Amino acid sequence: MSGPQVYLDGQFLPLSEARVSVEDRGFLFGDGVYEVLRASAGRLWTEEAHWRRLASSCREVALSLPDGLGEPALHGLVLELLERNGLSAGEATVYLQLTRGAAPRTHHFPPAGTRPTLYLSASPFTPPWEAREQGVHAITQPDVRSLRCNIKSINLLPNLLAKQRAKEAGATEAVLVRDGVLTEGASTSVLAVIGGAVCTHPDGPFILPGITRDVVLALARDAGLPVSERPVRLEERGRFEELFLASTTLDVVPVVALDGLPIGAGRPGPVTRALQRAFYRAQGVVPPRLLG
Amino acid sequence: MSGPQVYLDGQFLPLSEARVSVEDRGFLFGDGVYEVLRASAGRLWTEEAHWRRLASSCREVALSLPDGLGEPALHGLVLELLERNGLSAGEATVYLQLTRGAAPRTHHFPPAGTRPTLYLSASPFTPPWEAREQGVHAITQPDVRSLRCNIKSINLLPNLLAKQRAKEAGATEAVLVRDGVLTEGASTSVLAVIGGAVCTHPDGPFILPGITRDVVLALARDAGLPVSERPVRLEERGRFEELFLASTTLDVVPVVALDGLPIGAGRPGPVTRALQRAFYRAQGVVPPRLLG
Repeated sequence: MSGPQVYLDGQFLPLSEARVSVEDRGFLFGDGVYEVLRASAGRLWTEEAHWRRLASSCREVALSLPDGLGEPALHGLVLELLERNGLSAGEATVYLQLTRGAAPRTHHFPPAGTRPTLYLSASPFTPPWEAREQGVHAITQPDVRSLRCNIKSINLLPNLLAKQRAKEAGATEAVLVRDGVLTEGASTSVLAVIGGAVCTHPDGPFILPGITRDVVLALARDAGLPVSERPVRLEERGRFEELFLASTTLDVVPVVALDGLPIGAGRPGPVTRALQRAFYRAQGVVPPRLLG
Repeated sequence: MSGPQVYLDGQFLPLSEARVSVEDRGFLFGDGVYEVLRASAGRLWTEEAHWRRLASSCREVALSLPDGLGEPALHGLVLELLERNGLSAGEATVYLQLTRGAAPRTHHFPPAGTRPTLYLSASPFTPPWEAREQGVHAITQPDVRSLRCNIKSINLLPNLLAKQRAKEAGATEAVLVRDGVLTEGASTSVLAVIGGAVCTHPDGPFILPGITRDVVLALARDAGLPVSERPVRLEERGRFEELFLASTTLDVVPVVALDGLPIGAGRPGPVTRALQRAFYRAQGVVPPRLLG
């Protein structure tokens, strides 16, 4: 192997050679959308949901996949990419990004016929079992993002700045707060357990429709847990029995402290643990410790 | 000449060869800032104000120019770029973009020592005298941008979508409206004349500190015109005597219709004309017709 292979604009090539024009609208404007998928032994997790969300993001920004690249073709590309990177057997993440292509810089869309840029990469993935087991710290940060958070676009500067603040504070995630309401994390969904109910921000323009979030809410309902998709206010935090994050790479991770103060008893709570167990049962995954 | 020359990461090269890594954080995240400058016969307009704003954008996102590249070096690069493109004599625009460089994708900042990517291009510029003379149409669009509009970042997707809507409606600009208030255009500042006063959104997180806007407001004050930096509400539009745009490439352009309905008498008004005249007088430019 001569380093990772990626897919760019119709061909597989070494990452070190994968370059885009400075006029690519991804580079000039953040004019693109993306997805991150998990693969275990060549099986893609919740694949259909990811393609559905990609289609939704594309629709919202009037962007189309290159001609002829529907879901079956994407599926094939992902599998070939995993294969070429020796990742067909283990745990991996796949990154997919689509931009409006390269064209002389104008705010309005480029001429018809401008070919969108499609980029895919795959990386070996080490599941963060320690975080899932022991929980993590989070901080709150003002949610200054756009009012179209339901689009998984590469306009991520506010997310980056919030995540960096978290890192500098020794925390794993920044929980974003808009007008006093917890929306989501910089790269995760955020769910609270209040009065035994799993509470999280409703879908709409203020959050990304999290795929792991949806899986977890379905599992909660299946388990007979009350679920409330409603704005959760930061001022309710004294009543948070538990708080947890959901994302494609974290799965379900307890938040044991927020802004340096413990959530509940300061350790992973029973609802979060039950949902973790249900999650891995549904995925057919046996976690190393977790359920002990 | 073999096509335009650009500057990228320490060297001048043909645009057709100027490529960045797919791991550039500009491409993956829109993690960068930019400026657009005007040059007339090798003289840069309001150059210091542009470098000051660039420094401010950099500060807000914790981004630094590559080592040793201060304002004098940037000035030199811009002049050399103009020279190499045969643009030292005429009218040109210069685009400058700085990103946080290429590194494996993480939301938090890349390792210390990651070299920022600096990209500059120059293009011949045809001043839009017809628009300045006759005025343009604009539409209103919801302002769904982030709450850090004071940063001139390349997270421009909402701006692109608004501009595209304008284009599809046969208009030149989209005037963005947040909570009933006119903030600015997709790529311009917006100013209204109400009761003889020049009114425009105050500086702060909801607008970019427009350099042409500042020049125009100073000229208005010099001319003894009342100036009011206050939120202008769309519901006041019946009282708009005039409306105009200000930007580095438009200079001052009258808006003669908004959402298909005339502003004032439906033609450029006397305050806009007076400010256009003052603007060109201050720049030492003789406009082709305009003042007739």
